[in-house]
Amino acid sequence: MFAAYQQRSQQRVDAALERLFQAPASDLERLYAAMRYSVINGGKRVRPLLVYAACDALGGDLAQADGAACAVELIHAYSLVHDDLPAMDDDALRRGQPTTHIAFDEACAILAGDALQSLAFEVLGSDAGNPADAALRLRMLATLSRAAGPAGMVGGQAIDLAAVGIKIDQQALERMHRHKTGALIEASVLLGAMASGKASAIQLNTLQHYAQAIGLAFQVQDDILDVESDTATLGKTQGKDEANDKPTYPALLGLDAAKAYALELRDQALAALHDFDERAEPLRQLAEFIVARRS
Amino acid sequence: MFAAYQQRSQQRVDAALERLFQAPASDLERLYAAMRYSVINGGKRVRPLLVYAACDALGGDLAQADGAACAVELIHAYSLVHDDLPAMDDDALRRGQPTTHIAFDEACAILAGDALQSLAFEVLGSDAGNPADAALRLRMLATLSRAAGPAGMVGGQAIDLAAVGIKIDQQALERMHRHKTGALIEASVLLGAMASGKASAIQLNTLQHYAQAIGLAFQVQDDILDVESDTATLGKTQGKDEANDKPTYPALLGLDAAKAYALELRDQALAALHDFDERAEPLRQLAEFIVARRS
Repeated sequence: MFAAYQQRSQQRVDAALERLFQAPASDLERLYAAMRYSVINGGKRVRPLLVYAACDALGGDLAQADGAACAVELIHAYSLVHDDLPAMDDDALRRGQPTTHIAFDEACAILAGDALQSLAFEVLGSDAGNPADAALRLRMLATLSRAAGPAGMVGGQAIDLAAVGIKIDQQALERMHRHKTGALIEASVLLGAMASGKASAIQLNTLQHYAQAIGLAFQVQDDILDVESDTATLGKTQGKDEANDKPTYPALLGLDAAKAYALELRDQALAALHDFDERAEPLRQLAEFIVARRS
Repeated sequence: MFAAYQQRSQQRVDAALERLFQAPASDLERLYAAMRYSVINGGKRVRPLLVYAACDALGGDLAQADGAACAVELIHAYSLVHDDLPAMDDDALRRGQPTTHIAFDEACAILAGDALQSLAFEVLGSDAGNPADAALRLRMLATLSRAAGPAGMVGGQAIDLAAVGIKIDQQALERMHRHKTGALIEASVLLGAMASGKASAIQLNTLQHYAQAIGLAFQVQDDILDVESDTATLGKTQGKDEANDKPTYPALLGLDAAKAYALELRDQALAALHDFDERAEPLRQLAEFIVARRS
């Protein structure tokens, strides 16, 4: 049942995303092609799924959540393009395909990433696919910009880069992940809830706790998969974290304790949804999926 | 008199910008330092000046234009940081100082640029320094995101990179500049006018024509200065355009015709302001300044 929900959500956001990459003129075709290449890639669309599932949990209209679903995926995609650059993680493979700077070139990848970030705010700022209430939309834009910026995702990448080769404790590692991946996952849930136009302050707060738990669980599981999976299943270079001497949960806690921690975080997420009815089922199933996935 | 206006405007935006770079934690200090370094640099603040002057032209309250003034400068600053990267223009000097990737490192410069872009939208999305009207603010955010993105500034950089070493005509050159620098200059004028809360659709349209003319004039004059000034006056490597085989107006039209064209564009800008009263004087003086400046 969750697989069907995931597939519908993925198709929904992919259809909306696909409309964004029509180059307005021939001299912009390469840039738009690089943007499209960076986004339309068979990705799991976890963040858009969170947007839709949070909107559904509050009985909202998904047609008003399409903008938010696209926006969070565009921010995520841009961060991967820049993260893969030679000066950053220097990765040639992403989801089994050449990374954008390999498939195009480095300058094009930098610009495509920059453009995807602008586009995220443009999509959330346009009338189509978003709630009509301007004050609400403004709060959504503020939420996304804070989550994406230096006190959010970009800050997490800076902390991550600084931590390579340095021994850090669990608290510092969680701080890094809360920024690097957690901030955008939180924003996805909050934006979806806000897009419903029906979220109370208490519900937003509860959903934020849910999002923090699954965000961390997602990362712990990623670290586990980096140790356990082979490159073919993972679609990226296996063992890369260890080779780069990056801090990970298995390295810090041991593999078994890391697995137990991922399950504990799943339980925290489920507990946060206690007061929600059956419409929150996709959010619950996602919490299960995150720690069960193999890639 | 214009010098005094320019100085007041510069001090006003610099004070507002300076407040943006307090790192929220010690592990983010380097990122915020790189962001601050990229922005607080004695820049001329032409775009914030346009915001304030357009707001003044309509009798607006400058306290409601501070957000827009900061936002356009943050977008401009991020574009320079990324433009200077080795994979792009590979420039080591900017306003006589080491560029961000030289003063810090390449990864830090990529992230600082990314963070400055997010911050621009965050600043325009926050209540302080912006008009209270949510629908108006939403239109301002939409205007900035379109101007910054692939159909605007980033698109212009992509067109520019593709044009290196290729013979292009005046039409193609103007198309590149309309995107690369023109889009953000237009947005600056429009955002300032919108921030006043008093701009009619006709006035916005007229101001857009003004902005298009000075945007192009600015670029023509830049090309002229690249030929005529020495490196010390210019604060960047002189003759760089020619050395890079970049298309320029002096190369295309000849130096004298390029100078005449800059003056013609200034006159078009002044003509566009015909129906504005004396409160548009700073906008008029800026049009004069752009073609008279030596650096």
